[in-house]
Amino acid sequence: MSDNRAVAYAGAGKVEVIDIDFPSFTLQDGPGVNPASVGRECPHGVILKVVSTNICGSDQHMVRGRTTAPEGLVLGHEITGEVVEVGPGVEFVKVGDLCSVPFNIACGRCRNCKERKTGICLNVNPDRPGAAYGYVDMGGWVGGQAQYVMVPYADWNLLKFPDRDQAMEKILDLTMLSDIFPTGFHGCVTAGVGVGSTVYIAGAGPVGLAAAASAQLLGAAVVIVGDLNEDRLAQARSFGCETVDVSKGDPADQIEQLLGVPEVDCGVDAVGFEARGHGDGSATEAPATVLNSLMDITAAGGSLGIPGLYVTGDPGASDEAAKKGSLSLSLGTGWAKSLAFTTGQCPTMKYHRGLMMAILHDRVQIAKAVNARAIGLEQAPQGYADFDRGEATKFVLDPHGLLGAA
Amino acid sequence: MSDNRAVAYAGAGKVEVIDIDFPSFTLQDGPGVNPASVGRECPHGVILKVVSTNICGSDQHMVRGRTTAPEGLVLGHEITGEVVEVGPGVEFVKVGDLCSVPFNIACGRCRNCKERKTGICLNVNPDRPGAAYGYVDMGGWVGGQAQYVMVPYADWNLLKFPDRDQAMEKILDLTMLSDIFPTGFHGCVTAGVGVGSTVYIAGAGPVGLAAAASAQLLGAAVVIVGDLNEDRLAQARSFGCETVDVSKGDPADQIEQLLGVPEVDCGVDAVGFEARGHGDGSATEAPATVLNSLMDITAAGGSLGIPGLYVTGDPGASDEAAKKGSLSLSLGTGWAKSLAFTTGQCPTMKYHRGLMMAILHDRVQIAKAVNARAIGLEQAPQGYADFDRGEATKFVLDPHGLLGAA
Amino acid sequence: MSDNRAVAYAGAGKVEVIDIDFPSFTLQDGPGVNPASVGRECPHGVILKVVSTNICGSDQHMVRGRTTAPEGLVLGHEITGEVVEVGPGVEFVKVGDLCSVPFNIACGRCRNCKERKTGICLNVNPDRPGAAYGYVDMGGWVGGQAQYVMVPYADWNLLKFPDRDQAMEKILDLTMLSDIFPTGFHGCVTAGVGVGSTVYIAGAGPVGLAAAASAQLLGAAVVIVGDLNEDRLAQARSFGCETVDVSKGDPADQIEQLLGVPEVDCGVDAVGFEARGHGDGSATEAPATVLNSLMDITAAGGSLGIPGLYVTGDPGASDEAAKKGSLSLSLGTGWAKSLAFTTGQCPTMKYHRGLMMAILHDRVQIAKAVNARAIGLEQAPQGYADFDRGEATKFVLDPHGLLGAA
Amino acid sequence: MSDNRAVAYAGAGKVEVIDIDFPSFTLQDGPGVNPASVGRECPHGVILKVVSTNICGSDQHMVRGRTTAPEGLVLGHEITGEVVEVGPGVEFVKVGDLCSVPFNIACGRCRNCKERKTGICLNVNPDRPGAAYGYVDMGGWVGGQAQYVMVPYADWNLLKFPDRDQAMEKILDLTMLSDIFPTGFHGCVTAGVGVGSTVYIAGAGPVGLAAAASAQLLGAAVVIVGDLNEDRLAQARSFGCETVDVSKGDPADQIEQLLGVPEVDCGVDAVGFEARGHGDGSATEAPATVLNSLMDITAAGGSLGIPGLYVTGDPGASDEAAKKGSLSLSLGTGWAKSLAFTTGQCPTMKYHRGLMMAILHDRVQIAKAVNARAIGLEQAPQGYADFDRGEATKFVLDPHGLLGAA
Repeated sequence: MSDNRAVAYAGAGKVEVIDIDFPSFTLQDGPGVNPASVGRECPHGVILKVVSTNICGSDQHMVRGRTTAPEGLVLGHEITGEVVEVGPGVEFVKVGDLCSVPFNIACGRCRNCKERKTGICLNVNPDRPGAAYGYVDMGGWVGGQAQYVMVPYADWNLLKFPDRDQAMEKILDLTMLSDIFPTGFHGCVTAGVGVGSTVYIAGAGPVGLAAAASAQLLGAAVVIVGDLNEDRLAQARSFGCETVDVSKGDPADQIEQLLGVPEVDCGVDAVGFEARGHGDGSATEAPATVLNSLMDITAAGGSLGIPGLYVTGDPGASDEAAKKGSLSLSLGTGWAKSLAFTTGQCPTMKYHRGLMMAILHDRVQIAKAVNARAIGLEQAPQGYADFDRGEATKFVLDPHGLLGAA
Repeated sequence: MSDNRAVAYAGAGKVEVIDIDFPSFTLQDGPGVNPASVGRECPHGVILKVVSTNICGSDQHMVRGRTTAPEGLVLGHEITGEVVEVGPGVEFVKVGDLCSVPFNIACGRCRNCKERKTGICLNVNPDRPGAAYGYVDMGGWVGGQAQYVMVPYADWNLLKFPDRDQAMEKILDLTMLSDIFPTGFHGCVTAGVGVGSTVYIAGAGPVGLAAAASAQLLGAAVVIVGDLNEDRLAQARSFGCETVDVSKGDPADQIEQLLGVPEVDCGVDAVGFEARGHGDGSATEAPATVLNSLMDITAAGGSLGIPGLYVTGDPGASDEAAKKGSLSLSLGTGWAKSLAFTTGQCPTMKYHRGLMMAILHDRVQIAKAVNARAIGLEQAPQGYADFDRGEATKFVLDPHGLLGAA
Repeated sequence: MSDNRAVAYAGAGKVEVIDIDFPSFTLQDGPGVNPASVGRECPHGVILKVVSTNICGSDQHMVRGRTTAPEGLVLGHEITGEVVEVGPGVEFVKVGDLCSVPFNIACGRCRNCKERKTGICLNVNPDRPGAAYGYVDMGGWVGGQAQYVMVPYADWNLLKFPDRDQAMEKILDLTMLSDIFPTGFHGCVTAGVGVGSTVYIAGAGPVGLAAAASAQLLGAAVVIVGDLNEDRLAQARSFGCETVDVSKGDPADQIEQLLGVPEVDCGVDAVGFEARGHGDGSATEAPATVLNSLMDITAAGGSLGIPGLYVTGDPGASDEAAKKGSLSLSLGTGWAKSLAFTTGQCPTMKYHRGLMMAILHDRVQIAKAVNARAIGLEQAPQGYADFDRGEATKFVLDPHGLLGAA
Repeated sequence: MSDNRAVAYAGAGKVEVIDIDFPSFTLQDGPGVNPASVGRECPHGVILKVVSTNICGSDQHMVRGRTTAPEGLVLGHEITGEVVEVGPGVEFVKVGDLCSVPFNIACGRCRNCKERKTGICLNVNPDRPGAAYGYVDMGGWVGGQAQYVMVPYADWNLLKFPDRDQAMEKILDLTMLSDIFPTGFHGCVTAGVGVGSTVYIAGAGPVGLAAAASAQLLGAAVVIVGDLNEDRLAQARSFGCETVDVSKGDPADQIEQLLGVPEVDCGVDAVGFEARGHGDGSATEAPATVLNSLMDITAAGGSLGIPGLYVTGDPGASDEAAKKGSLSLSLGTGWAKSLAFTTGQCPTMKYHRGLMMAILHDRVQIAKAVNARAIGLEQAPQGYADFDRGEATKFVLDPHGLLGAA
């Protein structure tokens, strides 16, 4: 054993747990690191002992070989941990603090950060706005599916849990604050979900289920989740959602049976570019299906929240246009209905504090909603495989055995 | 001469001035009228003597034969007039009131109207939410390029000018309140234009110019208008806009020369589905060009206002997908930049009162910005032809000679 | 028995059930009716058979003799009923529809209604913006604590329940949509309550309890209700609120015990001008106490929602300033903390549809939260007396025995 | 001459230019410095060579002896300067950058800063949320009416001008970005000013004039400024405002003459606690006059922006309640009209970038609107005296002779 074990991408369909260096406050070269970043000093950073770190559906895009991620890239952007070392420029975060890490890295000094748009920070990625830990083309920051990880701009980025013991009791819930809970919530907020809304969420993976729990927390009257995977739909029903099996035909018809009308007030795309067709076409990848379907079933004047990932290039796509990130969208339908669309990464920091409060005061059971299960770091390859097979589980890695995982 | 002359569509490329019935408070059958509407009673309506009524770019979609508009359809949804008769259910509007008519017809009683979404009223079109005067598939209401027209739900829809004489002095400005000024303004509002913004407006037709004037009124720091038509670009420059000639290459490069960066804060699509390519492709219709270009040049975190019309079906489109209203959009680019998009008809009533105040108190010269010119009703065919040739003029029809047109 | 029985104010401390005329579509003279309104025609109105109509705390201001309400004024502005007759100008509401009536009467045609500010409609009260049924100085409209009542501008004002049988099953919940549920909700919305908020609600009367239920529905993490009345505090605890007994000292101290800090994110004043002092001063009326206390305990940057009624004149006030509606407010404290304040009647129509959906889909138990109890119309005097004594009950009058009250 | 000259408070009615230490990155003891702050390290700070620094009306509250400011307190919170030294924790700001300093000091790491509420930062004042340079009870930070000043959290706080030469050409405009332009703008934004609004601004001092220029920039149709001082009213008229002389009677009557109605859409209080009475009472201080007047003349449903300072204690007040910061407000009137109120310091950083863009692109002439005049630092005592006499001038101190002041 080295002093830092981590999960790394090892070529299409494969992850490995490997030895990596203990983190430092100076950026090192490595797989996926932009040369411009090598040597960057991070006196504003802290080193976290990772208490929990989750496998995310967007990690799978890389693991399936659908991206240009290089082998050896250390994965993981859903991180919760304890501060074990603080850089010299850190003022408010202290050793011993137990904290949630927003998956999007932000500097807290640029125009976008000042406008709360931390998903597109201007100072953390030489290539374009926005960065994340352990993700291809997102700035080359080392991932957090590891025992230890460095978090830059720690005074800005970290959310400290107010009480350590209370937090450890709810750690399977709180671990969702780093990404999927705010991401699902952002999808709902940008879809206009409010008290009394009817909501359709495309996708019953962890983000879809988190969006469903979010919609309930926001007071939605009816939350309908659509997917092809019966296990995931059953999981959605387990906490009070209605469901639509998109392999069985047009969602509009099934929605009409549920609501009396074939439309909802708000639509959330929690699927993204790896969408499959509906009805008979459900065996085939059809990247525009979800968005076109949402335009169909969202009532005139409604909004679509689109947290599901769409990429600028997808070499593995089924058609030429999709390979370049272009989709054939029935915008005419959307325009006739005066629909609005919000895309992009969730600016986690806008939401994580309020969602933490909701968890700590028992207003939401997000771990239960997404069926969280802790496994050891060394079991990560199995977790990836099970998740890829469509298991209705959100896998939480437990690098130090603090969650009681096997 | 009958007691009501009106401009009607007379087949692809052709309009005629014809005799039609004087309006009544009961809907009659006629070209483009849904049978379900025939006989509908409108005791809530008034009859207007039309003081001014403008030719709109969206009328041209019909006149060019790009829609399913039937011959004989009476055109015109930009209407300003004097009340000459009130229905028995009208309480607050009085004979003699000089009023602006929002182009979107709304009932003032449905959920959407109560939520200020008057562009998608649920009670005025048997086919779908939303209606307009004199427009194909918009409910079959008789158009207002006529001497007289009936306006339903008059207490709700009409905006009365506070002083008749003052209004007649500024009538060429006020006539823009029925559509293009609010429409351009809505494009800017939904694009997030505010004090200090940099804005790119695609299209220097009347809606684009109205959007440019709106952006200035909203406090934008720099307003850039792009088009292929040099006359229209010159018109934009005449009131302080910067311009980009999209036939001369990538707008991003030209924007960089103006701003020092190749991006703007806010993007407005004032072109719609009849877009042409940029650079060398500018001779060819390319319906997704404008939106893809706007995604390219709008900075991460920005918004796109899309008042330009996109249709659900376009039999005259250049490719099969566009014929069904589908566009190949580079959504991956938009998603990576966390862009938001707002489509649809402007809900005129949300804006017309404030814009009227701005006109009456000399805060904006909208008639000058769009180069308004009054012509007689009988000159409408010539006006349509000149406008179709790309003349940088907003034609205002003057059915009763009240504007002093020839 | 006449054909219409109704509850009327009969002098300080007294209400009576009396015979009144069956409603018509022409306004008649009567107690509290402005002469300018007599003879006003309401072809846009409907006549409702009242299914339920609630006693409101604001009725008590009149009944206690704290206003200039004349004897004989028919009370009641919280009305739910079945349409039994429609005026000739009504288009969408039908006989047999079961509907909730917003307590604020609005025309649906003026500038304020178009801006969703239905609490200050410009066309329904000759004296000032805003009107209500059965309330002094609110336009002279006949109250609805009666068997039948006329509702003007019915297409605009009424909220139809989608299914009659379903509605009758939840009628004790739905009856709260006419006033206290939206009013409490508005207090929370304007106080900035959202997911994860900590909230202090001053007052555990029906509006305070409705605000507490609203805060929960909006996702608040902790809802704290303060009052002097132990029964009402117990009622608040019954559905998961924390409580503060303001007779036992400074709310800030008690809040600190609950939250660890002496401040909340959001403050709601559900008491209004008849407030009493806190701590030792709790026996004495002290109209500025609640607002000054809320400024103290709301964290810097927070907002105060003020649905509690403050009046322009209060002849029965304890000091000269309060008699003229002036309060001694520690605005310096509020300013130093950058607080914001929203006052006034709830614009019911902005919220009632969403809250109805939340009730119909079992997302909230508002009747249980406010401890609703149905009594016969003839028992109204007893209900008023019990409520005035501080009984923790929301009394719902049942004029036709449809709720199964004795 | 020392190496740092500065303007200091020297007892009621008196300021002096004195020698002080050159700033360092460690907080020192001194007049008005909280002992808890002494020794605080600011590696995140920079030292600015002050290019311009303005005398503010709120400085006068101290100089008049209306506060507990100690003698020797170095004044000045409106600062623009060139970076001459950067602390070791500064990453993005560079030596040579020409920058505007928001008057409110903020850490960029606390909950409030993350929510853009930089006026109430939690980490910069041991006594309460919020801090400023050179101001009593605002954290003890050394003022900037000096040759050099230290700015903490520089990466967060500073707004860099994009081009140094361009900036120096407009420096009299840009110097207003540190306080009064954003403050006046915030007053308008929180008062709901938008395109077409009618606005009344109480007070024609520099903040009132800046609010008036802001209202125009936001598209207001009519901007009315009220004051007692004819020179200041003339200044308001010089850039297109209407004016009301409050010494000549009720503002409502004068507004009615201007607008035809005695009400405006939006009200801004740019006076604060040192208000005088209106009409015959105008010789007497009457701290609630402005707010009560604004409640009277703001239309139902409107909002009041209150950037004018109200204090928690005012030993020099004319009555006992005001000495404790309490005002007798006619809240009943406000409530009946459903008014909303926003108080507190402007969060400068929310606005300064957009306003800078508006200045740089010639969309606003703020220096002209407030009649800016540069004087030497050594002339500060005369500037304070002239300003206190009511001269309609905004005095800009020029510590290094870079503005060409005498």
